Amino acid sequence: MRIAELSRRADVPVPTIKFYLREGLLFPGERTSHNQAQYTDGHVRRLKLIKALIEVGGLSVAATRHVLGKMYEPGMSALDSAGKAQFAMTTPRPVIDDEAWKAASEQTDSLIERLGWAVRTTNPARQTLTSALATLYRLGHTDQLELLDEYARAARQVARADLAQVLKEPDHDRLMETTVVWTALGDLVFSALRRFAHEDAAYGSSSSSEG
Amino acid sequence: MRIAELSRRADVPVPTIKFYLREGLLFPGERTSHNQAQYTDGHVRRLKLIKALIEVGGLSVAATRHVLGKMYEPGMSALDSAGKAQFAMTTPRPVIDDEAWKAASEQTDSLIERLGWAVRTTNPARQTLTSALATLYRLGHTDQLELLDEYARAARQVARADLAQVLKEPDHDRLMETTVVWTALGDLVFSALRRFAHEDAAYGSSSSSEG
Repeated sequence: MRIAELSRRADVPVPTIKFYLREGLLFPGERTSHNQAQYTDGHVRRLKLIKALIEVGGLSVAATRHVLGKMYEPGMSALDSAGKAQFAMTTPRPVIDDEAWKAASEQTDSLIERLGWAVRTTNPARQTLTSALATLYRLGHTDQLELLDEYARAARQVARADLAQVLKEPDHDRLMETTVVWTALGDLVFSALRRFAHEDAAYGSSSSSEG
Repeated sequence: MRIAELSRRADVPVPTIKFYLREGLLFPGERTSHNQAQYTDGHVRRLKLIKALIEVGGLSVAATRHVLGKMYEPGMSALDSAGKAQFAMTTPRPVIDDEAWKAASEQTDSLIERLGWAVRTTNPARQTLTSALATLYRLGHTDQLELLDEYARAARQVARADLAQVLKEPDHDRLMETTVVWTALGDLVFSALRRFAHEDAAYGSSSSSEG
């Protein structure tokens, strides 16, 4: 297909496609004359993935190139690639060298140990959690630490459902795309449902039953 | 206490305190001479709450003034005030007038009905959810809609724990502060734990058991 058709099918404007081609995010089409090239279904899928990484995952062009590079390393399984993409989507929080950070960091480590979860030290979400807990320490709200185990139980529940859903995807690109899209949107969905549940728990008739 | 002591105890710089006084976020101290005023523990608590609303809740100065105004309306319970603060913390997402938004909005309504939850039409998180689901529709990722009920179960679980924790707070200001701080930080904590659980579910030895 020509670039106009590619643009229509991936819902990405032609100038943006040309930009991705120049930046090396999208592999070139097969040149058929000095100013025309043919594109394939593979280009459509890759463009949708790039769009998901940038627009939904919030990645920069440089980070997207990095993730795409990692994703197609020889010998890497789809799940490994998805893990790489997920790591790249988490902006590491800056370490703040104070007492609160130190205490929070110990809480993060001891929670992971208590849960017995396999979480690599390179998982950037460790810093996300430590940063949130450090804020609790700084504000004198350490009572909320008691909620961590309940949150972990809920997180495990949804993470297993996420994984089962992602593993239904038919191919590598689609699995990757789903991982990126749902990692970002799942957080937003959960946060909205948590607000709903707060309102229901405070005022709803179902708050006293299993409703 | 003098303003310097207030600054130290609330961990807010003096110029910022003066700004909050000018903007009407903080009530004035008792004037003791033409350029000095005395502040109380009530000022310390209020400053901590303002700090939480702005720095952790991400509210603008105008939104903070609005929330503080609502919070102390006569006849309003602490729980009602906390609900107001929580509503104010959610920036409503712009409605996009397309097919995807319409379909997503129906999904939001039918989910709330199916759950039997008491969620007012004014709850701004309705738009958060609709906006996330509309993105799924636009990207052709509607398979993820199957995860909504699992997410709702997990959200209800943590929301009840949140509420029980918040209701332990000894006074109105502290309850409000906890609501604001934990509404914002709880999302971040959950998102980090979800990333941990993804890694563990994909690779951990506990992924096949109840771990």
